[in-house]
Amino acid sequence: MPQYRAPLREVDFLLKDVFDSATHYDGLNGCEQPTPELLDAIIQGSAEFAEQVVSPLFAIGDQQGCRFDNGDVYTPDGYAEAFRLYAEGGWQGLTAPADEGGQGLPPSLGFIVSELVGSGSWAFNMYTGLALAPVTCLLGAGTPAQKQQYLPKLLSGEWAGTMCLTESHCGSDVGLLRTKAKRNDDGSYDITGTKIFVSGGEQDITENIIHSILARVEGAPPGTKGVSLFIVPKRLVDAGGECGEFNGVSCSSIEHKMGLKASATCVMNFDGSKGYLLGKENRGLEAMFGLMNTARVGTAVQGLAMGQVAFQWALAYAREREQMRSLTGAKNPEGEADPIMVHPDVRRMLITQKALVEGNRALIYWLGQLVDLSRFGDEAEQKSASDLLELLTPIAKAFCTESGQEVAALGLQVFGGHGYVADNGIEQLVRDARIATVYEGTTGIQALDLIGRKVLGSGGALLRNATDLIRGYCEEQASNTAISEFVGPLSKLIDAWDELTKSITERAIKNLDELGSSSVDYAMFSGYTALAYMWVRMADAAQAMLDAGTSETDFYEGKLAAARFYFTRILPRTDAHARAALAGADSVMSITDAGFGE
Amino acid sequence: MPQYRAPLREVDFLLKDVFDSATHYDGLNGCEQPTPELLDAIIQGSAEFAEQVVSPLFAIGDQQGCRFDNGDVYTPDGYAEAFRLYAEGGWQGLTAPADEGGQGLPPSLGFIVSELVGSGSWAFNMYTGLALAPVTCLLGAGTPAQKQQYLPKLLSGEWAGTMCLTESHCGSDVGLLRTKAKRNDDGSYDITGTKIFVSGGEQDITENIIHSILARVEGAPPGTKGVSLFIVPKRLVDAGGECGEFNGVSCSSIEHKMGLKASATCVMNFDGSKGYLLGKENRGLEAMFGLMNTARVGTAVQGLAMGQVAFQWALAYAREREQMRSLTGAKNPEGEADPIMVHPDVRRMLITQKALVEGNRALIYWLGQLVDLSRFGDEAEQKSASDLLELLTPIAKAFCTESGQEVAALGLQVFGGHGYVADNGIEQLVRDARIATVYEGTTGIQALDLIGRKVLGSGGALLRNATDLIRGYCEEQASNTAISEFVGPLSKLIDAWDELTKSITERAIKNLDELGSSSVDYAMFSGYTALAYMWVRMADAAQAMLDAGTSETDFYEGKLAAARFYFTRILPRTDAHARAALAGADSVMSITDAGFGE
Repeated sequence: MPQYRAPLREVDFLLKDVFDSATHYDGLNGCEQPTPELLDAIIQGSAEFAEQVVSPLFAIGDQQGCRFDNGDVYTPDGYAEAFRLYAEGGWQGLTAPADEGGQGLPPSLGFIVSELVGSGSWAFNMYTGLALAPVTCLLGAGTPAQKQQYLPKLLSGEWAGTMCLTESHCGSDVGLLRTKAKRNDDGSYDITGTKIFVSGGEQDITENIIHSILARVEGAPPGTKGVSLFIVPKRLVDAGGECGEFNGVSCSSIEHKMGLKASATCVMNFDGSKGYLLGKENRGLEAMFGLMNTARVGTAVQGLAMGQVAFQWALAYAREREQMRSLTGAKNPEGEADPIMVHPDVRRMLITQKALVEGNRALIYWLGQLVDLSRFGDEAEQKSASDLLELLTPIAKAFCTESGQEVAALGLQVFGGHGYVADNGIEQLVRDARIATVYEGTTGIQALDLIGRKVLGSGGALLRNATDLIRGYCEEQASNTAISEFVGPLSKLIDAWDELTKSITERAIKNLDELGSSSVDYAMFSGYTALAYMWVRMADAAQAMLDAGTSETDFYEGKLAAARFYFTRILPRTDAHARAALAGADSVMSITDAGFGE
Repeated sequence: MPQYRAPLREVDFLLKDVFDSATHYDGLNGCEQPTPELLDAIIQGSAEFAEQVVSPLFAIGDQQGCRFDNGDVYTPDGYAEAFRLYAEGGWQGLTAPADEGGQGLPPSLGFIVSELVGSGSWAFNMYTGLALAPVTCLLGAGTPAQKQQYLPKLLSGEWAGTMCLTESHCGSDVGLLRTKAKRNDDGSYDITGTKIFVSGGEQDITENIIHSILARVEGAPPGTKGVSLFIVPKRLVDAGGECGEFNGVSCSSIEHKMGLKASATCVMNFDGSKGYLLGKENRGLEAMFGLMNTARVGTAVQGLAMGQVAFQWALAYAREREQMRSLTGAKNPEGEADPIMVHPDVRRMLITQKALVEGNRALIYWLGQLVDLSRFGDEAEQKSASDLLELLTPIAKAFCTESGQEVAALGLQVFGGHGYVADNGIEQLVRDARIATVYEGTTGIQALDLIGRKVLGSGGALLRNATDLIRGYCEEQASNTAISEFVGPLSKLIDAWDELTKSITERAIKNLDELGSSSVDYAMFSGYTALAYMWVRMADAAQAMLDAGTSETDFYEGKLAAARFYFTRILPRTDAHARAALAGADSVMSITDAGFGE
């Protein structure tokens, strides 16, 4: 089983050369500003934690899986201890407000840490990440008393948490949910119903679990307008934050899944359990809005992380495994064969991985800075960053998770038959990564959100923010001849994005099915475009370092080569997506249901 | 867990409407010619066997997997019994020559049966398929005495067999193999070495296992020119075909794999085991050539089969699962929501599956007829069919397995979160399908075989055979205005295929790395092109039925809709592949090894 090593050189490249994080963090107001030393300590610390504590749990978590026994759930060996160490290290409160007991650091750091730690074992990240779900809900909609009651132990990592949305008959269509909330005289509610797919719904890690749950108050209107958000603790919590009696919350089974087996996916029964309303009745989706966006970017990070590990392992294998001679003559004449790294098709797979993974990381880091600015920038920055995030969040979720699966699959392919056996870990990565395009809103849901709510819903304004920004960048770079091979095509691509959007929206006015029939192709087009912008930024930064006489020529030339590969060999896919998106709704709607076959 | 139902209407469409199998079979010489009644009985029989005997083994095979205990391998419950029933049904000898104890039917029937039975459980097909490996070797290179000794019990299904090629240090690079063969005075050889990834190397199903194994005779030249093919029985066989003593063949472990868990993948040790040369010393690869081609098409069938089941199950789920309303108004106003089938993006996924699966099936059936003609056609037909097969075999292996994985992945996506849990079976399909792009020569190996050995190696002649044929077809259809929307684009695509081939081969003359850097994109381009031809043939047939006033309008209009979808929404991918292929070898070779990263 290969070991995970945190890609610190890549992190450094993005933070220093591409996104000038020092200036970025200096410009924030209202949060702790990490000094370069603190930033370094956080990254080093999380990298070491990932490599030494979390990564060793990767294989064992899959082998043992979680065990259900009469309502109790046992996590694989080491998970509880690692969670405890993570909590003790102060990682759970990293980006929570200082006045609520967190460290008050900017959210972007959370994404950086999440990639590194989650690359060790994404199942581990599920416990730490979901533990923050009630935190986000409380910060967004909790009363001061509620915050005081729950936040300290959630942020210290003594307690964990969940998101309870799905029911067996309602997944994407959350408005169908049936879980009931009955108002009590004391202002609390009795929650009754069954939720499925609850990650970390039950576990043997923390003494209490704080469920964030969507339910329907008696008499509420049907659909999404009658949905309210509650906090339901596994054990009731007194005003001082100490936990007491059990609250009628029970786990009736766990799912047997394709992957992420160390993450307990629970069926949870609420049987008149005490629940506490967050925000207003029937405004649950609004109250959960912040959580959903965070979870979407968090899942995009999973696509990045699984891809990174697959790339790293495939690269190491390709450097070591010897099979056949290079067609242009032996490169390793002393050996029986050349390392497979010499073969152009193996290089094609590896550089595809590199271009997608590093592009995805840049996109996530950009989003991280935007999240920082949306909360801690000045007024204009907050507005502009929020608008960009509205557009970019579904793009990142859809694209990073879809491309993450491509990268994981290529990793297995590089290993050949040895990739299909469990010993090399890569098949587990493929399985673990597979859920990412499904949960937190499928790719189809992200794509509809993008083209429908965001682009069409804003009358195109949200898209224009992004295209104006990128066009502005292209104009700035117009005289930068060293990267004109990228800037020109990027500029054309932005025109094509506008063109495509215009065509789809014009048709959608006449027929709303035009949205759904083109949405995923549109989202993928948008993702490739966003990554093209990231690759120009990275090529620009790399060229500047080379011009400045850096001694790390392999590293920086590698960036230019990956950018070139991305532009010449991956971007042509955008044309295919555009043509598919423009084929019209008839291409999927004209066939009768019976016409699909038996 | 959904049930598998054999797609008999689809089989019928291809055999009757598209490929006129009655005329085809009538034209063969030297084999049994199936009457329409016999053909029907074979298809019905294998469909029933698949549905009633094999399909129930699908889930249990994955849950139990194979068990290794001190050299013995235990297959999951029911596999041995199903194999026995299959053998008793006479299926093993279906296409083997009548004078060797088979039923002498044309090979195309083997592909048809293999899809149906393998759709029930591909792991089951591994046992029956590999049992035919020594049959193919013996038929190709065995002496009459050897055939008499081994064939009867292999064809009756009393014995099974294997292909032993891979060693831990040599997979794609078979020339590196180290297994030794020492010549004995009696003409036999002592075989010593360790082979890995041997499917069915040990099992509890048959009383004997006949291994086909590649080894190197003492003093043989290095590389592939020193490789010989042997038969090594698990238990020695007397001249009369009865089995006796054990032969020093042992299984030391089985692999834990991502999928196909019911198929035992064994590490096999040969310790001075008696081996019997097939063909000539050092000509082992030649002797194995027929087997490799058969195995490649057989693996293409796996891509088709896994895709078919994924499509069938996703379609059934989409018809039943209710989530959200159609954007164009409720389609199921009595229900809480509409079936997800109404949503354009779900339809997009389903029709993508349909277009790829049914295109792949047509391609396999075409190959089946070509295999028939290559053996039982007249002299000109044999030559022409063999030439086409040379070109189409690597295309089919690469394309049907790659697209089979896309189809399986889309199936899981249609199921959403319910697809990630084991209960619905679709995640197992994704795992079972994943090996198909790896074994029997990876996609990269197929692609190099295509562009290097086949296209370049024939000076373009093999490609011209195919393009001439398809151009001829387009000319015949020039006045068929009903399908001109397909014929025109197909004609242009063939020109583009020629153009692309010309560009790559011109560059390759100067730099052989141009082959490897473009090969997979070229193979995928070729695959999409082959399917385009298939879809025009299917559209043509469907239109003819509609014109003739068929009452099955949904079925035949569905074919036209799928063809339209294929042409407008899938074929644009060919441009992306062509542009990527033409980006030049520098796109993957100019980056230094260090430049890839750490």
